[in-house]
Amino acid sequence: MKKIGVLTSGGDSPGMNAAVRAVVRKGIYHGIEVAGVYSGYQGLIEGNIKRLEAGDVGDIIQRGGTKLYSARCDEFRTNEGQLKAIEQMKKEGLEGLVVIGGDGSYRGAMALTERGFPCIGVPGTIDNDIPGTDYTIGFDTALNTVIEAIDKIRDTATSHERTFIVEVMGRDAGDLALWAGLAGGAETILIPEESYDIDEMIDRLQKGRDRGKRHSIIIVAEGVMGGNELADLIKEKADIETRVSVLGHIQRGGSPTARDRVLGSLFGARAVEVLLNGGGGRAIGMKNHQVVDYDMTEAFTAEHNADMSLYTLSKELAI
Amino acid sequence: MKKIGVLTSGGDSPGMNAAVRAVVRKGIYHGIEVAGVYSGYQGLIEGNIKRLEAGDVGDIIQRGGTKLYSARCDEFRTNEGQLKAIEQMKKEGLEGLVVIGGDGSYRGAMALTERGFPCIGVPGTIDNDIPGTDYTIGFDTALNTVIEAIDKIRDTATSHERTFIVEVMGRDAGDLALWAGLAGGAETILIPEESYDIDEMIDRLQKGRDRGKRHSIIIVAEGVMGGNELADLIKEKADIETRVSVLGHIQRGGSPTARDRVLGSLFGARAVEVLLNGGGGRAIGMKNHQVVDYDMTEAFTAEHNADMSLYTLSKELAI
Amino acid sequence: MKKIGVLTSGGDSPGMNAAVRAVVRKGIYHGIEVAGVYSGYQGLIEGNIKRLEAGDVGDIIQRGGTKLYSARCDEFRTNEGQLKAIEQMKKEGLEGLVVIGGDGSYRGAMALTERGFPCIGVPGTIDNDIPGTDYTIGFDTALNTVIEAIDKIRDTATSHERTFIVEVMGRDAGDLALWAGLAGGAETILIPEESYDIDEMIDRLQKGRDRGKRHSIIIVAEGVMGGNELADLIKEKADIETRVSVLGHIQRGGSPTARDRVLGSLFGARAVEVLLNGGGGRAIGMKNHQVVDYDMTEAFTAEHNADMSLYTLSKELAI
Amino acid sequence: MKKIGVLTSGGDSPGMNAAVRAVVRKGIYHGIEVAGVYSGYQGLIEGNIKRLEAGDVGDIIQRGGTKLYSARCDEFRTNEGQLKAIEQMKKEGLEGLVVIGGDGSYRGAMALTERGFPCIGVPGTIDNDIPGTDYTIGFDTALNTVIEAIDKIRDTATSHERTFIVEVMGRDAGDLALWAGLAGGAETILIPEESYDIDEMIDRLQKGRDRGKRHSIIIVAEGVMGGNELADLIKEKADIETRVSVLGHIQRGGSPTARDRVLGSLFGARAVEVLLNGGGGRAIGMKNHQVVDYDMTEAFTAEHNADMSLYTLSKELAI
Repeated sequence: MKKIGVLTSGGDSPGMNAAVRAVVRKGIYHGIEVAGVYSGYQGLIEGNIKRLEAGDVGDIIQRGGTKLYSARCDEFRTNEGQLKAIEQMKKEGLEGLVVIGGDGSYRGAMALTERGFPCIGVPGTIDNDIPGTDYTIGFDTALNTVIEAIDKIRDTATSHERTFIVEVMGRDAGDLALWAGLAGGAETILIPEESYDIDEMIDRLQKGRDRGKRHSIIIVAEGVMGGNELADLIKEKADIETRVSVLGHIQRGGSPTARDRVLGSLFGARAVEVLLNGGGGRAIGMKNHQVVDYDMTEAFTAEHNADMSLYTLSKELAI
Repeated sequence: MKKIGVLTSGGDSPGMNAAVRAVVRKGIYHGIEVAGVYSGYQGLIEGNIKRLEAGDVGDIIQRGGTKLYSARCDEFRTNEGQLKAIEQMKKEGLEGLVVIGGDGSYRGAMALTERGFPCIGVPGTIDNDIPGTDYTIGFDTALNTVIEAIDKIRDTATSHERTFIVEVMGRDAGDLALWAGLAGGAETILIPEESYDIDEMIDRLQKGRDRGKRHSIIIVAEGVMGGNELADLIKEKADIETRVSVLGHIQRGGSPTARDRVLGSLFGARAVEVLLNGGGGRAIGMKNHQVVDYDMTEAFTAEHNADMSLYTLSKELAI
Repeated sequence: MKKIGVLTSGGDSPGMNAAVRAVVRKGIYHGIEVAGVYSGYQGLIEGNIKRLEAGDVGDIIQRGGTKLYSARCDEFRTNEGQLKAIEQMKKEGLEGLVVIGGDGSYRGAMALTERGFPCIGVPGTIDNDIPGTDYTIGFDTALNTVIEAIDKIRDTATSHERTFIVEVMGRDAGDLALWAGLAGGAETILIPEESYDIDEMIDRLQKGRDRGKRHSIIIVAEGVMGGNELADLIKEKADIETRVSVLGHIQRGGSPTARDRVLGSLFGARAVEVLLNGGGGRAIGMKNHQVVDYDMTEAFTAEHNADMSLYTLSKELAI
Repeated sequence: MKKIGVLTSGGDSPGMNAAVRAVVRKGIYHGIEVAGVYSGYQGLIEGNIKRLEAGDVGDIIQRGGTKLYSARCDEFRTNEGQLKAIEQMKKEGLEGLVVIGGDGSYRGAMALTERGFPCIGVPGTIDNDIPGTDYTIGFDTALNTVIEAIDKIRDTATSHERTFIVEVMGRDAGDLALWAGLAGGAETILIPEESYDIDEMIDRLQKGRDRGKRHSIIIVAEGVMGGNELADLIKEKADIETRVSVLGHIQRGGSPTARDRVLGSLFGARAVEVLLNGGGGRAIGMKNHQVVDYDMTEAFTAEHNADMSLYTLSKELAI
């Protein structure tokens, strides 16, 4: 290969820039050219592609968001869109593509690979929900953002003897809620992976009060229900007043943590290596403390399993 | 005086602990005893009062919330409640009281003063809305919390070319929205002090897009309307999609900034001095860069005026 | 005037970018062109000057350092250097210049003004040591950086029952040490403005230990002596082991606080107004809570006075 | 077992409190009593031991340092000291002990185990240098503290076109320098595990300048040499001026990251389980993404190996 491209797609996540930097510089290190595709698959279709030098990705490792921008692109799901994209890449002389994003982005990468254009998937999403990797880029930063928010909320909760409900991201995966709940010392965690018992939860709240706890914190993943909905439920069932904090979009932003920068760097570099070795259709990940690459289809067919031992431990420690 | 008390009341704000520490240690420095009243006026009525030594307020200057706790107390608004409170203070040998809180808390302090029990008001609220002082304890910390949130949101807004609405606290006062809007580089700021023109706002949004801005940020104080309500309005009027972030309770918490710690220290110390000089019914503040004390009734009768020059400047710079 | 320039000079300070943004956009708002001069007076001499549009200063309000870069320039102190600079500015069509920096930078601005080229000084330095203004841009951010460092050090100091010496910036002005000392709950503060009594300091340390304090923190401004030097002195005099932390360059960097962004915005905007009104040789400042402009020579001839009431209060509260 | 103890020893590290909380609550969950030993082995000898209830470890998961304090203790290295310690523990009814600390602390734990008093080691040190575990509690927080400092320094380095040397902790292990170097985008990393070539380093610096890099950052682990020493060397060899930042003690403090809180919780809980299953002389760790326990002697006899792939990658990406 002489020239490859890199794009970011789907929701942005902190550390994507570290991955972009690694793809560009690792490529240059191996003597090939690297081009950035702007605004995801949309930019691929439109030929919004520019060659990047080592200096172009300087001073971005510490930035949140993605310097290559991201966008939704319905057109790319069509045959026509994909053919346009391949045409654009041929025009630019690209022979391979690194796609940084979530599993939706992987599907696009797989489609291109199947059309003979080799793509590699790099897991970039705060949800940590891509099968085949223990961690995704952005999860650690989002988690620490949630933890800082909980720490702030606890100040008020303690001062006023209140129960707080904190709604965090996670439509299908409870990783963020689980880790944040354990690290934030939450009394109760509600995740999509586990059914909840509202009576048991209320019982737990009341016992905590009885033994003199000045505050209770409940973490709920958005995939279970909204924070305000939960507050209404608790009010109705037990006449307990709670306060709700919906963390929302702040969870996506911010300067990446050291770990997400390292992960982004490792993953981006490995993606280039795999591509240069001829390996289209592979996804990069961290598995049992090792950087690995695996068949990208595993990311669609396998299931992501949250670490339920955190759930159990969290309950035991929240007594 | 030989013994005084200190309490925190109303919503907690970062820096209250610095003020408590200052009251306690300044009192001890002047050879008097100081007692902490726990859970605000509720604790005063119930006699939840403990003597505090210098060491008891060690290592709290950096903590958010209030170590003396806070609570709402309807009973204290009654004659009976106030008489009980005075009885408790007499029992404890208190001869004066420093009340740290917002203007609601000041009313209680004034009531006690009028009953012959001298109280001093120290402005502790993140809203910065107490007449007679340029700054209240907690405003600077809350402002920086909002700014950090906006910085995070901007990462995503830029990456995805989106318009974000950020709802901040401020029922009657727009200070937080004003300062955050200017410091956060927001395109539009909606505050209770100023009527808004929805058409002008939309026009501004569209012009920004036309000249290639990758994102727009609108700050709305909760007193104007909710963020989601504003999003609906914009959608309806101009079919522009926006994302909403309701910052909520995180604005109250967190380790106080240097400024709020200094303000708390200066105000707490001055409160003790004024009390020792026989001055019940006074409020402490910062006016034109000087620590001042003034008639507490001014805090009810005068009006707080947000600095509208920030509003004008913000508009000029958001072109 | 139809076109003005803006440069940053001397040590960088957080908030300089907010000031640059304000100069550029306020200028454009008033219908004039604005050019950025890169690398301070060096760039002025070399003609490293580029026109800036509103979009060129987008997304910089939250960045530390200075996007216009800074540099030392001995040549500019010479007649020849200054004449070259004026020539370059004439070539570019500049009719006025906003100089953001410390008092050294002001001298250059005054020299140009005296040569008939009107300049305005905007106070940008973390030292807060420019006469005529209560605050300089960058001071608040540096102060909070110091406070965060002290908070971290206190964790260890408390855990190990240790005495820590923290050396902060401040060759001639003790503002940073004073504010940080009060906000950080330091036992002792050593500043250039006040002679110190080593015996009294040691006595204070020992008394603190006797009454059970788990840690002591001493803040020393670099202008008094180095932290390691002080540690040696204490060891020699009283055989007390201390740990030293020299905060160094981290004090200059970081995303500016809300206050420094607002200050930068207000000052930059005022500078443009004064320049457009024909006022060369003026400096901008904040005096008694008002944005002011004053004769720039005052910044050389008057003295900056640190607020010694903080010093006194800090001692009283550190009992 | 009916009662166990927990202590922290050696240098404090963020997340130790999460581990203490986990030991106490997991113990209570299993129906046994837990006592905190204050000030490490010193407190063990002196009988500074107090029973802890679930509420006693509330609100500490987010605190830096260690609530149980730490101290050096030469006496504990003697036969006599260890016998005293065992006597005290018998007096208190303790049947097992969890020791949270570095490998020095493990030696004490092993000594007690060999005397028939079962101890479990939990790895708490920012150095990440304990054989048998991929991560120690505190490493992630220290790493992020270093990264934040580097980000601040880069602002100034970029603004002034300077080369900075950042000295980080690590006497024998380069983990902190390695991870920080990769995550911080440093040009050069000097670690104890790898010999350095001063000429190659200078060559790299000069090439970076030639290709227009505005700044260079060199990370040096204290075990290689001091930052100032390195600056002198570079000055002498190549007449290049550098600035030095010695991060020092701030690396030990601060609120723990989410990861360190989770690690502390997992490790503390596992320690209790192993102790209850009769397993003295075991150490807890994270190996290949699994919580494990292993023979504590491995922590002395095996070698800790830093991940040198980070070193290689860092060089490749710093082109």
